Amino acid sequence: MSREKSIGIFDSGVGGLSVMREMIKLMPNENYIYLGDTARVPYGNKSPKAILQYSIENISFLLDHGIKLLVIACNTVCAYALDHLEKVFPIPIMGVIKTGFDSLIQNTKNYHVAILGTVNTLSSGIYQNLILNAYPNAKVHSVPCPLFVPLTEEGFLNHPLVDLTAKEYLEKLNLTNVDSVLLACTHYPLIYSSIRKVLSPSIQLVDPSKASAEGSLKLLKEKNLLSPSSSPKYQFYVTDNPERFKNVAEKFLGMPISRVDLKFI
Amino acid sequence: MSREKSIGIFDSGVGGLSVMREMIKLMPNENYIYLGDTARVPYGNKSPKAILQYSIENISFLLDHGIKLLVIACNTVCAYALDHLEKVFPIPIMGVIKTGFDSLIQNTKNYHVAILGTVNTLSSGIYQNLILNAYPNAKVHSVPCPLFVPLTEEGFLNHPLVDLTAKEYLEKLNLTNVDSVLLACTHYPLIYSSIRKVLSPSIQLVDPSKASAEGSLKLLKEKNLLSPSSSPKYQFYVTDNPERFKNVAEKFLGMPISRVDLKFI
Repeated sequence: MSREKSIGIFDSGVGGLSVMREMIKLMPNENYIYLGDTARVPYGNKSPKAILQYSIENISFLLDHGIKLLVIACNTVCAYALDHLEKVFPIPIMGVIKTGFDSLIQNTKNYHVAILGTVNTLSSGIYQNLILNAYPNAKVHSVPCPLFVPLTEEGFLNHPLVDLTAKEYLEKLNLTNVDSVLLACTHYPLIYSSIRKVLSPSIQLVDPSKASAEGSLKLLKEKNLLSPSSSPKYQFYVTDNPERFKNVAEKFLGMPISRVDLKFI
Repeated sequence: MSREKSIGIFDSGVGGLSVMREMIKLMPNENYIYLGDTARVPYGNKSPKAILQYSIENISFLLDHGIKLLVIACNTVCAYALDHLEKVFPIPIMGVIKTGFDSLIQNTKNYHVAILGTVNTLSSGIYQNLILNAYPNAKVHSVPCPLFVPLTEEGFLNHPLVDLTAKEYLEKLNLTNVDSVLLACTHYPLIYSSIRKVLSPSIQLVDPSKASAEGSLKLLKEKNLLSPSSSPKYQFYVTDNPERFKNVAEKFLGMPISRVDLKFI
């Protein structure tokens, strides 16, 4: 497998940009190819069967473009399909749930935590199980925030609408004693500041994007797959509305993007 | 075909309740069976192929339950699939686009209008074409409001979050000279008051639900299919989250609902 190949990043939409931003910071020499399934976002309330089918289609597309590592930057896909995808695709795969769990555990001191995620990710019980298996006395609040994904997909990042939605989901919760809140959906770091504002300053808000980037670096190093070049290429594909993706991506990554191509579904 | 059979109402989610409410007012003796595809909502940004496939599945389910009239209470489905569905299903079908168009034309005086709808309904050009074919000098503004569907599906009806979203979509528009604004998505009448508030009082806000109910009554009369009974039954099915649907439906229809059943997809 060639070290010159790209790192593939797959998400249901714009959420994977939060992981990509940290990966570019940490591995600026790498080539990246990003695929957002913006025609079928949100995945967070779809059936497991649909999630698996969409994931297989999208990952096959990335493999056809020649990638050396696949980052599945979508908690919902990881929760429902990662085991299966690891079996069928002959490529190193980096999921975001293990790093989310690790980040949370590194931050909490009292093991009294809250998980913000999609309905599907939370219903899967994957975070709750990981935490309670390792720390049986932990207390875990699950907080579904279903509107955060459509809001970020529609390009509302620093916006009063997002502030008000964050208030709606978080202000009335009784988070007494909770010391750490995990962003268990890659879309949520795009609206970090709105979420941060409504939480008590004593609570740590844990964004696992950096840990996911570090995990990817470790994996590439172990397999001797780090890129030798220093003129990286970025490719972006979406299944719908490339212009809107371009606007969000430029705003969030803080760099101009020359083109976003359409992958037909 | 039996007059005792139910009227079937199909929507992507809770939106069809706006039509059902008017139908119950107008035809209180009828039996109704409602199906909301809440697992796969919103349809408004899905591919035409997916919309057709989901519609066929859902309508087949309603037909299996024995219905005498099918109301497709979803503008997106009507825009992309009605022609095909009318060909394949052996049942009278009532769509909501023709009544939307008729309602708008009855209200406007200057033929300078705005259409609020999903991205898909507006992209289909169906309303624009109907209006411009009949009134070539009309001026038609298309205003996509993609967050309205997730908001209503999440149960935010009379809520500051909806007020703020309506402001975001409508306040900055230049609607000078527009005398009528059409709600071209059946979800939008559920948040009528939030939309009404941000429009100038001189603008008429046209909710075609009543016209859709009148159209259904006319069709049943013509075919001599009006129910002779006076102890109507209501059945509700959704593909996900029956509890949430029940809450929204009770709030919007203003009556208790004994059960909402799950249709597996």
